[in-house]
Amino acid sequence: MPAADRQPRIIALDAMGGDHGPEVVVPGAALSLERHPDIQFLLFGDEARIKAALARHPALAARSTVHHSASTIASDDKPSQAVRRGKGSSLWLAIEAVQKGEAEVVVSAGNTGALMAISKLLLRPIAEIERPAIAALWPTIDAECIVLDVGANIGASPSQLCEFALMGAAMARALFHVERPSVGLLNVGVEEIKGNEDVKQAHAILKEIADLPIDYRGFVEGDQIGQGVVDVVVVEGFAGNIALKTAEGTAKQIGIYLKDALGRSMWSRLGAFLAQGGFRVLKKKMDPRRVNGGLFLGLNGISIKSHGGTDALGFASAIDLGYDMAESGLLARLAADIAAFHGRLAAAKAS
Amino acid sequence: MPAADRQPRIIALDAMGGDHGPEVVVPGAALSLERHPDIQFLLFGDEARIKAALARHPALAARSTVHHSASTIASDDKPSQAVRRGKGSSLWLAIEAVQKGEAEVVVSAGNTGALMAISKLLLRPIAEIERPAIAALWPTIDAECIVLDVGANIGASPSQLCEFALMGAAMARALFHVERPSVGLLNVGVEEIKGNEDVKQAHAILKEIADLPIDYRGFVEGDQIGQGVVDVVVVEGFAGNIALKTAEGTAKQIGIYLKDALGRSMWSRLGAFLAQGGFRVLKKKMDPRRVNGGLFLGLNGISIKSHGGTDALGFASAIDLGYDMAESGLLARLAADIAAFHGRLAAAKAS
Repeated sequence: MPAADRQPRIIALDAMGGDHGPEVVVPGAALSLERHPDIQFLLFGDEARIKAALARHPALAARSTVHHSASTIASDDKPSQAVRRGKGSSLWLAIEAVQKGEAEVVVSAGNTGALMAISKLLLRPIAEIERPAIAALWPTIDAECIVLDVGANIGASPSQLCEFALMGAAMARALFHVERPSVGLLNVGVEEIKGNEDVKQAHAILKEIADLPIDYRGFVEGDQIGQGVVDVVVVEGFAGNIALKTAEGTAKQIGIYLKDALGRSMWSRLGAFLAQGGFRVLKKKMDPRRVNGGLFLGLNGISIKSHGGTDALGFASAIDLGYDMAESGLLARLAADIAAFHGRLAAAKAS
Repeated sequence: MPAADRQPRIIALDAMGGDHGPEVVVPGAALSLERHPDIQFLLFGDEARIKAALARHPALAARSTVHHSASTIASDDKPSQAVRRGKGSSLWLAIEAVQKGEAEVVVSAGNTGALMAISKLLLRPIAEIERPAIAALWPTIDAECIVLDVGANIGASPSQLCEFALMGAAMARALFHVERPSVGLLNVGVEEIKGNEDVKQAHAILKEIADLPIDYRGFVEGDQIGQGVVDVVVVEGFAGNIALKTAEGTAKQIGIYLKDALGRSMWSRLGAFLAQGGFRVLKKKMDPRRVNGGLFLGLNGISIKSHGGTDALGFASAIDLGYDMAESGLLARLAADIAAFHGRLAAAKAS
């Protein structure tokens, strides 16, 4: 349906978050608005800096409201400090807009711990969800998959791992348009005897409870994430964060090898020049800005973390992710799935 | 000193291990012998197959003794089965040769779980070491580092993590010829408040106990492993195994991207042809056979696991690793370091 016929999607932005503040957030919002003309933005932060940035983007300015805030949360503030003293900061106000129903989505490139702590405090977990998780998009050979938890928590109980499976599946349904997303549990082997107790018990539950809205495929190993063998990879946050950062580090490392190898001789440099079309494809494929944005899943509201050091293109990807999540009606569906899961888990335990 | 003046290094090989058995093990041994003419090999397995393979390598045949074994451990046998029924198999006999002092090193490309279980049973952990670990060589931008545990155990207590630090340092000293190797604990952040309790307590111990033969550098994150920020990265086996496999998978994935990107147009293909010298350098740098071999550390003997699917070049790397470890006098030094550590830990607790 044409954008004029529908309610706008309202997205709250912490304009001061990240390494560059409004100078990246505002052009990022402008890019995302080109792709989604039905967005309206609430921008929180230093009014003068935001308005100066908006002056270069009149179309965005026409669909934005600026809410001044004089205080910001620093990137090295502890989450507990941020919760105690962060009231009134740009991040706090942006999250509060979602709490009050004034916006559907909040996006920040600021302090991850503070975003998580304040989001949890103001938005509260969905009923029966024990712990929210951070879900990341992970590039695979042909497309993308979702990996969670990449660092919201350390450790996860069997039922928390099952909740992560349902949360990741809700996100996959929204992004990949597949009704029963395939789900795997990350483990150190694919045999049933492998892994720690939490993972083994989660495996037993997911195998036993029928009628879950997922296609559970059992264990997957670290090298299968990027192969795209499943839509959703579930892991507790310690190993998940290490896996994500190790993959990012390896990609960067190989980029350095490649540059070094191709700069070694005249023939290599000439060849690299002729092949630059191919390298552009490769660069695009490996561009971390393309899949920027961690979704803080399991709350009554959509809270998105952008990389702190990203540029406008990357920040726009994070906004796009929030837009897609809001479009999909993810939260209502997830709440129903979680309630059904706990009902079946209780029935399975009783029988 | 010339090879003739010294004792030979005796290395026991499970000739039946891996996907190809003697057809890879024997040419692998021949390659390693070219680099280390003082090795003598004990080859365990099917005598007819081994001798047929040796016939093509007379120099190796002259420095090898073949010990026939009619039974082998299958790659899908469970470790417990292997321990109960594996006696007399090629793997068992090769490990037993180290137990009896007939060889210093055992190398197998066979069943990892069986190699670990039988090695642990026959060679026993070094006094005061609670659990052995598997250490892997990890390619970094400029060289290599050591990561352990990559999967011998699930989870590790604080004092076990400290033992891993000393075990990895002993290996680094042997391989990188640095007296006080730098050591980092793998974590989800570099701040002291991050991570699980085991990692935080291990950090506190390593910071507090002075005079350890390591240069302890604190926490490192997943993306820093490949940057080579430390010689040794310590992590419990669940997250360590996931990190290792994720890195391997990412490297393979980027190789596929690269091939695909360079095959897209005539110019790209021509460019790739001209740059083939550079790509050869890259391929060599990323060749998994170059750093093949996981060292099973913490036992009274040197036990090495080669990748099961490797070729002769890869198997030779695994033998070379065992040779370097034997040369270095690793085990005596490690036993002394571990005893000193536990003495200091007890003193620190008492004070």
